[in-house]
Amino acid sequence: MTAPLDLPPRPTLPLSEGGWGDVPGARCGVAAGRIKATADRDDVVVLHAPGVAAAVTTASTAAAAPCLWTRARVPGPVEAVVVNAGNANAATGARGEADCADTAATVAAALSCDPDAVLVCSTGVIGVPLPMERLLPAVRQAVDTLGEPGARAARAILTTDLVPKEVLIRHEGVTVGGMAKGSGMIHPGMATMLAFLVTDAQVPPGPLQDLLTAVTARTFNAISVDGCMSTNDTLILQSTGLGPVRAPGAPGWAGFARAVEVAAAELARAIARDGEGATTLIEAVVAGTPSDAAAREGARAVVSSHLLKAAIAGRDPNWGRVVGALGAAGIPDLEHLDLDFAGVPALRDGQPVDWDEAAASAALDAPEIRIACRLPGPGLGRAWGCDLTEQYVRINADYRS
Amino acid sequence: MTAPLDLPPRPTLPLSEGGWGDVPGARCGVAAGRIKATADRDDVVVLHAPGVAAAVTTASTAAAAPCLWTRARVPGPVEAVVVNAGNANAATGARGEADCADTAATVAAALSCDPDAVLVCSTGVIGVPLPMERLLPAVRQAVDTLGEPGARAARAILTTDLVPKEVLIRHEGVTVGGMAKGSGMIHPGMATMLAFLVTDAQVPPGPLQDLLTAVTARTFNAISVDGCMSTNDTLILQSTGLGPVRAPGAPGWAGFARAVEVAAAELARAIARDGEGATTLIEAVVAGTPSDAAAREGARAVVSSHLLKAAIAGRDPNWGRVVGALGAAGIPDLEHLDLDFAGVPALRDGQPVDWDEAAASAALDAPEIRIACRLPGPGLGRAWGCDLTEQYVRINADYRS
Repeated sequence: MTAPLDLPPRPTLPLSEGGWGDVPGARCGVAAGRIKATADRDDVVVLHAPGVAAAVTTASTAAAAPCLWTRARVPGPVEAVVVNAGNANAATGARGEADCADTAATVAAALSCDPDAVLVCSTGVIGVPLPMERLLPAVRQAVDTLGEPGARAARAILTTDLVPKEVLIRHEGVTVGGMAKGSGMIHPGMATMLAFLVTDAQVPPGPLQDLLTAVTARTFNAISVDGCMSTNDTLILQSTGLGPVRAPGAPGWAGFARAVEVAAAELARAIARDGEGATTLIEAVVAGTPSDAAAREGARAVVSSHLLKAAIAGRDPNWGRVVGALGAAGIPDLEHLDLDFAGVPALRDGQPVDWDEAAASAALDAPEIRIACRLPGPGLGRAWGCDLTEQYVRINADYRS
Repeated sequence: MTAPLDLPPRPTLPLSEGGWGDVPGARCGVAAGRIKATADRDDVVVLHAPGVAAAVTTASTAAAAPCLWTRARVPGPVEAVVVNAGNANAATGARGEADCADTAATVAAALSCDPDAVLVCSTGVIGVPLPMERLLPAVRQAVDTLGEPGARAARAILTTDLVPKEVLIRHEGVTVGGMAKGSGMIHPGMATMLAFLVTDAQVPPGPLQDLLTAVTARTFNAISVDGCMSTNDTLILQSTGLGPVRAPGAPGWAGFARAVEVAAAELARAIARDGEGATTLIEAVVAGTPSDAAAREGARAVVSSHLLKAAIAGRDPNWGRVVGALGAAGIPDLEHLDLDFAGVPALRDGQPVDWDEAAASAALDAPEIRIACRLPGPGLGRAWGCDLTEQYVRINADYRS
């Protein structure tokens, strides 16, 4: 039998129990505002972590009002982030921009800070004005409850997600915590739908932004649930500065950067795993393209292929669709492709090998499967996605009702 | 109430009954070869139309052996095209290339012509070698049956399609006929899965190729079923020369070009309408982008949005997802977007208008719906797709079994 490929594993670090709210200087507030009128649930969150922040927001030219607001205020001093689920405040015109500014001003008044130190995130239906008469009281109530468990906030920001997504890493004297939501419209062009990281490390805004941008390419921009980039994608990294100083070139920076990257990767993978209707997390690793960027693009094309995703939902080890996806992405030298599907060798140097269909079918029953591709060049990249089930269609066929 | 947008309709011509086989000089041969071992059905076709031909094939870097073979031989003299369903002969390495050449040589021997005058098309599963011991006898049998009805050939080239797709246009003294297959893996990067056009007009190979390339951008490259570009996309236009001479700049060229474009558009729309599991044909028209190319890109992004497609499957008029798709495609000036969804106004100058949800929901019950988008610039483009149903997932979850 042909031996499986031996490609490098993803970077990891030990994870602690907890999340965003367990970082020194970070506090959560939560309230129920009926932002989606029919849903009686927590849906407004204030993430209070006075210090500085960096952020990346969607590359969509239809970016929602809160993305425009946030992007204009980072990197720099930030006091808090206000988040609502149930309404995206996207495609809402000038009224949407005014509503966003009013929301920030309401948080700022309650916290006695500058409105420009409040970032805003919204997620939910597009094209419907925010119910300000319910949102603003809920925002004030959320500020009043600062100190709530982070787990409650992590649940409040969800929409169609099934499970809250939190991460906590303590590494070389600093703490990095985070939470995220995202389940459909997941094919980030800058970040995922909504993800929040915070650290106690004291980091200047510029290096904080540069680090976040670099990490995003390898984590949140490497996942896809359905190929649909959102109008509201936002990732924010806050720094409270209550912990040790970390700066590029100084001791501890590499460990801090690794902690941020692993935290981001854990949340990104959690979003892919919790994709609408999904049953299987798919990791694609591509090695040997001309560049790392090309490898990531190829890996993301694989996990974005609806044909492949449907095949995996049906536990059909249809590895030909991996080749189809790489070809459609324009990856060169595929006549020399080595390919393993769920650990089972399929191609060596572009030629089909002694394929073990039974082993591959059995491997597809695992909650996470890996597709490994190797070409002759130096690039390396990975991406994460999920299978496409009938449940995905059912969820999105009546999302608004 | 806001008045609906008034955007230009697509070009049309009267259609005749019939298809590829009804053009002077064009004959079909058909045979059953068990190319997919479990399927006892017609699956091998020879399209005989001695003359010249042009073709466009997939932009995938994993292009199948038959695409590489065909692309190296057009535009130029062509005697026949041989087509098999049930196996794509893709990701089959050097053996696949040899099998393709053997297939062309077998047709050439039976027709007493040059193997370089035989084009080859395959469609079906990827990564499995062709069953040559069954294919070659079937190819010889197909040549023996030349003169079969075109409708039988149009049915033989199908895979998961539900209905044969044929077109016939008689216009200003020339005849253009065609047939196509394609149901999944439909997001052509050069042409659709497999489509065949033939005319009796006598056209030099160079202008024939230029015309086909231009028409492809506005027809086959403007459809999407699932965003997956195939390894085997091929569109061939043959000219038997038994009819009048047509050349650029000479009388009759514009009418001939229009007949080719309408024939191509009819087949492309038929493919979108027959998308795997589809119940609704979606036409998107985008006007006012900086260029026609940008308008087509925006229109295709709309019909490719899985979130929008799932919403339409559920008869949910979720027009916000149109804005999301245009934004993800990078279309500029969306703050000034006018949008009608299934004929119901949703946005004017970027602001939501008095939306009639009941009318929009009712409009989604039609077999074809139109999404109209207008911006301030000069560009115009359209694209066609279909809704995404649970049936699509079911079909692709067990395609190989």
